[in-house]
Amino acid sequence: MTTEGFIVLDEKTLREYIKKTPSLFSKVGSDDVDKLEVKEVGDGNLNFVYIVTSSSGSIVVKQSLPYVRCIGESWPMTKERSYFEATALKRQYGLSPKHVPEVYHFDRTMSVIGMRYIEPPHIILRKGLIAGVKYPLLAEHMAEFMANTLFYTSLLYLTTTEHKSAVAEFCGNVELCRLTEQVVFSDPYKISEFNRWTTPYLDGDAEAVRNDNILKLEVAELKSKFCEKTQALIHGDLHTGSVMVTHESTQVIDPEFAFYGPMGFDIGAFIANLLLAYFSQDGHAAQGNDRKAYKGWIMDTLADTWNLFHKKFTTLWDIHKEGPGEAYLHEIYNDVELRELVKQKYMTELFHDSLGFAAAKMIRRIVGVAHVEDFESITDPVKRADCERRALDFAKMLMKKRRNFNTITDVISAAQ
Amino acid sequence: MTTEGFIVLDEKTLREYIKKTPSLFSKVGSDDVDKLEVKEVGDGNLNFVYIVTSSSGSIVVKQSLPYVRCIGESWPMTKERSYFEATALKRQYGLSPKHVPEVYHFDRTMSVIGMRYIEPPHIILRKGLIAGVKYPLLAEHMAEFMANTLFYTSLLYLTTTEHKSAVAEFCGNVELCRLTEQVVFSDPYKISEFNRWTTPYLDGDAEAVRNDNILKLEVAELKSKFCEKTQALIHGDLHTGSVMVTHESTQVIDPEFAFYGPMGFDIGAFIANLLLAYFSQDGHAAQGNDRKAYKGWIMDTLADTWNLFHKKFTTLWDIHKEGPGEAYLHEIYNDVELRELVKQKYMTELFHDSLGFAAAKMIRRIVGVAHVEDFESITDPVKRADCERRALDFAKMLMKKRRNFNTITDVISAAQ
Ligand SMILES: Nc1ncnc2c1ncn2[C@@H]1O[C@H](COP(=O)(O)OP(=O)(O)O)[C@@H](O)[C@H]1O
Ligand SMILES: Nc1ncnc2c1ncn2[C@@H]1O[C@H](COP(=O)(O)OP(=O)(O)O)[C@@H](O)[C@H]1O
Ligand SMILES: [Mg+2]
Ligand SMILES: [Mg+2]
Ligand SMILES: [Mg+2]
Ligand SMILES: [Mg+2]
Ligand SMILES: [Mg+2]
Repeated sequence: MTTEGFIVLDEKTLREYIKKTPSLFSKVGSDDVDKLEVKEVGDGNLNFVYIVTSSSGSIVVKQSLPYVRCIGESWPMTKERSYFEATALKRQYGLSPKHVPEVYHFDRTMSVIGMRYIEPPHIILRKGLIAGVKYPLLAEHMAEFMANTLFYTSLLYLTTTEHKSAVAEFCGNVELCRLTEQVVFSDPYKISEFNRWTTPYLDGDAEAVRNDNILKLEVAELKSKFCEKTQALIHGDLHTGSVMVTHESTQVIDPEFAFYGPMGFDIGAFIANLLLAYFSQDGHAAQGNDRKAYKGWIMDTLADTWNLFHKKFTTLWDIHKEGPGEAYLHEIYNDVELRELVKQKYMTELFHDSLGFAAAKMIRRIVGVAHVEDFESITDPVKRADCERRALDFAKMLMKKRRNFNTITDVISAAQ
Repeated sequence: MTTEGFIVLDEKTLREYIKKTPSLFSKVGSDDVDKLEVKEVGDGNLNFVYIVTSSSGSIVVKQSLPYVRCIGESWPMTKERSYFEATALKRQYGLSPKHVPEVYHFDRTMSVIGMRYIEPPHIILRKGLIAGVKYPLLAEHMAEFMANTLFYTSLLYLTTTEHKSAVAEFCGNVELCRLTEQVVFSDPYKISEFNRWTTPYLDGDAEAVRNDNILKLEVAELKSKFCEKTQALIHGDLHTGSVMVTHESTQVIDPEFAFYGPMGFDIGAFIANLLLAYFSQDGHAAQGNDRKAYKGWIMDTLADTWNLFHKKFTTLWDIHKEGPGEAYLHEIYNDVELRELVKQKYMTELFHDSLGFAAAKMIRRIVGVAHVEDFESITDPVKRADCERRALDFAKMLMKKRRNFNTITDVISAAQ
């Protein structure tokens, strides 16, 4: 398959590609490229990811093909997503360099990104959560990543000139936005060939979602915000499969869904996936490990993530209160009391947005097309359905009642 | 002044321009261009408008220069606004042809729009309102213009692909958005060299606006919606000076501020300017004409405008409920009761947005840079200040309490 300079890489052509690309070749040393070890590790649904190793170093090369990997050419999907992923990666690396891999190389024609290899013992966070591993710095790091990437790309920091120009550019990533619109905000609420759930146990639950008018009213509001609220450059797919971790390090990858959207969509995605991990734990309990303590750690991490995010985000706002951001001009909002009122109002709306999007993300992982390994790896379907139902019921309540929650502790109490 | 093919037109060069432009020349017939009557009529603040008349027909030629007309070259302003005006005019003409002048010609380099001459007895609506003239079809026509232009450019009718591409294009009109941000949402709430008011009578009132924390909290929310909510292609400057009327006809001109923003900004602009006209009437009362009946007509027109807009807009939504719009997919929102819920929620938020923006527009016309002739033409400053203060107090209340109003009748009662 070739279209105007685009070729699908394989192990052989990748070696040749690296050889003629100095920014990549220099990273793997001066070895004969034939001696490079090439391993395809893409476990995601959409793209191909190669780890390339020589005696002197390793890199990751990610290529997007013009279709959805896990489906095939029958589901076309612009390979231009790679451009938005590279652009977002570079921006996020600039804003939160400790938590984003550096981009070494980007080739728009080939839809190829060369980036830092996030080395072992880093693993995908979702795998760690299933295994019951605690990550003491996870909340701190994720709060930092989200606070930095969201604050600095919002009108709290940007001029409206910078903001509108960035909004316009990322409007180009509409195909990926449409995928989210479909699988998060639409399919779970109607009959769709793509939906699935733990049948027959959840048949009634899936039907109840499709018939729940209040839920559908709420999800419409969330969808409108997703489509119309250009609040910040969001990652767009910030689940626990887009985070790689060790005890000391947290790295956020795969922002190919990035665009200017509501901040709560990122925060909600991460919250949702912690809650899914939480509700799945009973399915992973075993003799001698009831996972009770681990469930406590997940909830502590959830609380810390929001609370630290809140603190870091409002601190950035304070630091830059006389900065370039045009949403709240210092000359107007210089009164101490007023600044507190303004922050409180902003953060409350953001909290409720985050809870709403979290709920939408949970629901779609239980009755929509793409499920999460947290539940999928529970082999006993009765047990799995039981965990999923509790998650689903909680998510439905959360979406409807999100405005009644004032603190993340209240949310956690409701889940326990 | 010349930059790459751009020249500032005057009567002489305009004749030459028309001669070599078939789409314009054909409209004014085959006369010798030297015999064309050319009259500059621009009474607006920004641009030059020429009426060109021959024995066989008339056209209007509007040119934007790279600065603000009423200030001069010291306030630069991209002449590209002409491109957005022409693009919006054509789109709005396509959607509401009875209420928008046809564009005959657009020249991006020259920032020249040639369009239908809106012939006498059409006058600018604001002049009619000051003179106390009733326009029986005004509400109906404005409701139709707003319903058509807002509905068909929103996600209630567009696919997200069409929407995002249009959003991106109009992000380019950022300079005009910034002007609105400054003069509507910022300057009135701080000390600014541009602000003015009927001094000394309103000195305390202007200061009170600058010190009203709750008002500033509310205007921040409205500004965020203006900057971030890409709900529809809005006119962006829909005051009564952008509408030309006769008893039978209503024509909306001058959409150079057009971009994808909140629908309530247009509806609010029109509401605000009717309310300003209402509050100014006492200043125009004269022996034998207390303007009481006219005030009643203005309020009836206000009520009819919103109520007819509501009806027309929701009717369009019903008609196209199985159409291309992607916000509320028919498969999800096909239940009659749910559809009512969804419409009610959408229209209530739109109503409250409209009231909030109306309030902001009223405030800026009393203590901000650009005032309205409705008040300016009241020569006695005591009388004028009195009318303005009542308008200002009402606007402040409206911005703060807008969510408590359920119907336009409630708003009108509060104003009377
Ligand atoms: N920079 C990297 N370093 C190490 N492993 C990576 C890196 N990027 C991706 N991977 C691995 O490849 C997998 C798929 O990558 P991802 O970017 O999520 O692709 P997709 O877009 O297809 O979901 C990840 O789950 C991770 O295991
Ligand atoms: N198509 C038209 N037909 C007749 N008069 C027009 C037309 N367009 C503009 N005018 C006149 O020119 C004035 C200024 O036009 P406008 O488009 O509002 O310019 P500006 O952008 O400078 O405010 C209007 O108030 C109106 O009197
Ligand atoms: Mg991935
Ligand atoms: Mg991905
Ligand atoms: Mg005008
Ligand atoms: Mg205006
Ligand atoms: Mg104008």
